[in-house]
Amino acid sequence: MPLVPRRMGIDTQQEFVVYMDRECVVCRSEGFDAQTRVLVHNGGHRILATLNVTDPGLLSPGEAGLSNSAWLALGIRASDHVHVTHAPTLDSMSDVRAKIYGHRLSAPALDAIVQDIAKGRYPDAHIAAFLAACAGGRMDRQETIDLTRAMVSAGQRLAWGRAPIADKHCVGGLPGNRTTPIVVAIVTAAGLTMPKTSSRAITSPAGTADVMETMTHVGLDVPAMRRVVEREGGCFVWGGALDLSPADDVMIRVERPLDIDSDAQLVASVLSKKIAAGSTHVVIDVPVGPTAKVRSDADYLALKALLEDVASACGLELRIVRTLGTQPVGRGIGPALEAHDVLAVLRGATHAPNDLRMRAVALAGHLLEFCGHSRAGEGHDRACQLLDTGAAWAKFQAICERQGGLREPAVADIRHPILAETTGLVHAIDSRRLSRVAKLAGAPADAVAGLEMHVKLGEHVERGAPLFTLHTETPGELAYAMDYLASHPLVTIGKPGADA
Amino acid sequence: MPLVPRRMGIDTQQEFVVYMDRECVVCRSEGFDAQTRVLVHNGGHRILATLNVTDPGLLSPGEAGLSNSAWLALGIRASDHVHVTHAPTLDSMSDVRAKIYGHRLSAPALDAIVQDIAKGRYPDAHIAAFLAACAGGRMDRQETIDLTRAMVSAGQRLAWGRAPIADKHCVGGLPGNRTTPIVVAIVTAAGLTMPKTSSRAITSPAGTADVMETMTHVGLDVPAMRRVVEREGGCFVWGGALDLSPADDVMIRVERPLDIDSDAQLVASVLSKKIAAGSTHVVIDVPVGPTAKVRSDADYLALKALLEDVASACGLELRIVRTLGTQPVGRGIGPALEAHDVLAVLRGATHAPNDLRMRAVALAGHLLEFCGHSRAGEGHDRACQLLDTGAAWAKFQAICERQGGLREPAVADIRHPILAETTGLVHAIDSRRLSRVAKLAGAPADAVAGLEMHVKLGEHVERGAPLFTLHTETPGELAYAMDYLASHPLVTIGKPGADA
Repeated sequence: MPLVPRRMGIDTQQEFVVYMDRECVVCRSEGFDAQTRVLVHNGGHRILATLNVTDPGLLSPGEAGLSNSAWLALGIRASDHVHVTHAPTLDSMSDVRAKIYGHRLSAPALDAIVQDIAKGRYPDAHIAAFLAACAGGRMDRQETIDLTRAMVSAGQRLAWGRAPIADKHCVGGLPGNRTTPIVVAIVTAAGLTMPKTSSRAITSPAGTADVMETMTHVGLDVPAMRRVVEREGGCFVWGGALDLSPADDVMIRVERPLDIDSDAQLVASVLSKKIAAGSTHVVIDVPVGPTAKVRSDADYLALKALLEDVASACGLELRIVRTLGTQPVGRGIGPALEAHDVLAVLRGATHAPNDLRMRAVALAGHLLEFCGHSRAGEGHDRACQLLDTGAAWAKFQAICERQGGLREPAVADIRHPILAETTGLVHAIDSRRLSRVAKLAGAPADAVAGLEMHVKLGEHVERGAPLFTLHTETPGELAYAMDYLASHPLVTIGKPGADA
Repeated sequence: MPLVPRRMGIDTQQEFVVYMDRECVVCRSEGFDAQTRVLVHNGGHRILATLNVTDPGLLSPGEAGLSNSAWLALGIRASDHVHVTHAPTLDSMSDVRAKIYGHRLSAPALDAIVQDIAKGRYPDAHIAAFLAACAGGRMDRQETIDLTRAMVSAGQRLAWGRAPIADKHCVGGLPGNRTTPIVVAIVTAAGLTMPKTSSRAITSPAGTADVMETMTHVGLDVPAMRRVVEREGGCFVWGGALDLSPADDVMIRVERPLDIDSDAQLVASVLSKKIAAGSTHVVIDVPVGPTAKVRSDADYLALKALLEDVASACGLELRIVRTLGTQPVGRGIGPALEAHDVLAVLRGATHAPNDLRMRAVALAGHLLEFCGHSRAGEGHDRACQLLDTGAAWAKFQAICERQGGLREPAVADIRHPILAETTGLVHAIDSRRLSRVAKLAGAPADAVAGLEMHVKLGEHVERGAPLFTLHTETPGELAYAMDYLASHPLVTIGKPGADA
């Protein structure tokens, strides 16, 4: 029973929705009701969608309305017809149930679950049940290895025909810690290969891809990416369209509002992306601090052991670098503001944030040693040299030119400073609130939005001096951020003499 | 920033959706994107909804489109305006996360979670995570008690000002086991009080409310229900609109597609409904068999112990009755078909299904003893007597008359017999497939749809004799059921002499 597809003009993001009239013969004969999961196919394109039933007048009974994402995924062209049938049974859900009941999952079971998730066959509630069942230390070492492998297998895997392929990752939770562009510039200036794929922001005010996008084009496909890497040894590409560990993107989308942290998911997420990207040598920056993702020594050691175990089983060389996670890094928080910091470090500007520079140099030094470019103990100095001579900056410009040109990031129209209400020492900066304020100001959707820090922990500030400046594009967003700040201060100042 | 509400004519069932234009000033100033969770309020009415963003032309930027359920829940009237803001943080999710990480939940934590679920504040993925975290034996006895109490507290609680208040429940999984109408008729004919609230089908082809609705009006509110009970001592009411343990309905809706079985959830679900309905003495029918919900001795004993423990802690008198769950009960499967069986038993018709009669009499006998009407050992005979003298039938008619009149259930236009392909003994009847076929035929939405069994386990059948008859209203549904039957036979027939 073919139906005429109609674009509804409704954005439901990754959730596919199909709209059908209550009196539609397919609804009636198949016994479909609102919220039924259905299979929609248009020739070779197939999606699982949720059915919304429409009142008379919105659609004719022979039409199938499609949400924007469903329309795109089905590749609808003029004169196409779609078919809507019952969604097939999800056999892999029996394995999810087994996990819920406390059983181990075999490699084939994890493969089947991850394939179904990657193909969009699981509604969010099923994914959430899987994530909840796996969290809380309920995945053992072998299951985490098998999950990682399953996530790699469910997508594309890049091969570079050479080694080493350098890569880095930061476990996150530290606003402004935008070392990646600098590390790539240094490492590729040394002649190593570092074809960097990055994500956009998930819960943070900016991802590396958002930051790089304020300076160059990051939406390269694999052939374009290969051309840049062939010439320059590195690239800055948004990985979201390359189908690298696609189940990871789906799980992260569901995990985010649930705010579940699970070492097994974290390790599988990080390592599957690196393996799929063809990396062989990976440095992982793990900031540890009270408002970072990893908050204690014990958590750090457990995560490190699992990362090393799983990487080793998957044939990935890994080096974990523990860093301080007590306060934001650099000055800017938000895509363009972080790009300004990155450029200042690369250009050796006198106002360049030193903490960002030191972190990037340390990580690049590890990679230079790790990949055999520098001898042990000499990587750090070599990284400094590549940065200070301008070699890294030249390489950064060359890569950006090959990706379509380098441009200066913009600056927001509205800049509103927040002033200290007392004189004293900066006792604490709340990273979580700071991310929230940057997002309320419009980041990352508005690339120039965010905030610019003017103080660091332990600094003395005078009453009336600026603590940070809000950057926004609209008065509404400024008001929203200010409202939040009224009850959620970011910076705690101690009275002079009261402490330290 | 007030917005003009507009009914979209889109049925999304219990999920509330609000539609807003991409350029709407509220979307822009609040930083809303598709799938953002938002709070929509219209005066005192507030709902949490998922945002769908529309392309230009569908809505004007000053409008807020509402799904049908959201429109109703907000009680929109002409000239009303709605406000859309960020959804408040769900503090109780930190307790769900604690459960996911393996911690016990306190009574206040369970109260907060259940309240939020009952009020529709959790999206499905959050509920699924909670259910998965609680399944697999991860709720201890005290948590199950506290969950039950929390579920009662989150809704209305009926009080009858007398005792005992009799009730019954079947743990389910046995198609056609429609004893409730008969038990209520017998028990109230004995002068006891049994104000029965029942649910509609969830995963099965019929719930007691669906069956009773083919004979009388079941959508009574509490005052109307009280008037019937005052006069007749009993009633047959759909409980879905009475706000009894409303979190249970929400959780069941999410649990159903996940197909998670959890003793804690089951016990809290069953007992919270009974306590909220004001019942004091409850008989629970637990069918045990290979395709019933409870499949083994060990499962039965574990469930029985937990039911008794939690009931006792909540001050509920409970008697568990283990019954045989090896094959469907009665002849009809589907609302009207089961109603015909119920009426045949009540009327003492010669063709009345004896298994249904025996089960109902046994349960009613337990209740008569348990509630002090009959002495121990005499309840069964008294129940038979009330049925055989026509007292139960008279009472059933009287109750239905007070609820708006008794009518004869209808019969489907299309009746298609399925014939035995070989001669032999009936070795097995698959209850799960049988439910599936009845639903494919249209039950419970089409009240007359379903199937009528002609054979029982162990019976001899001749090749060509009818095994069962499909009842449907449309050729499409008949075809759908036949398709399924072609690859999923319901009845297994052994060759003569090959067995038994």
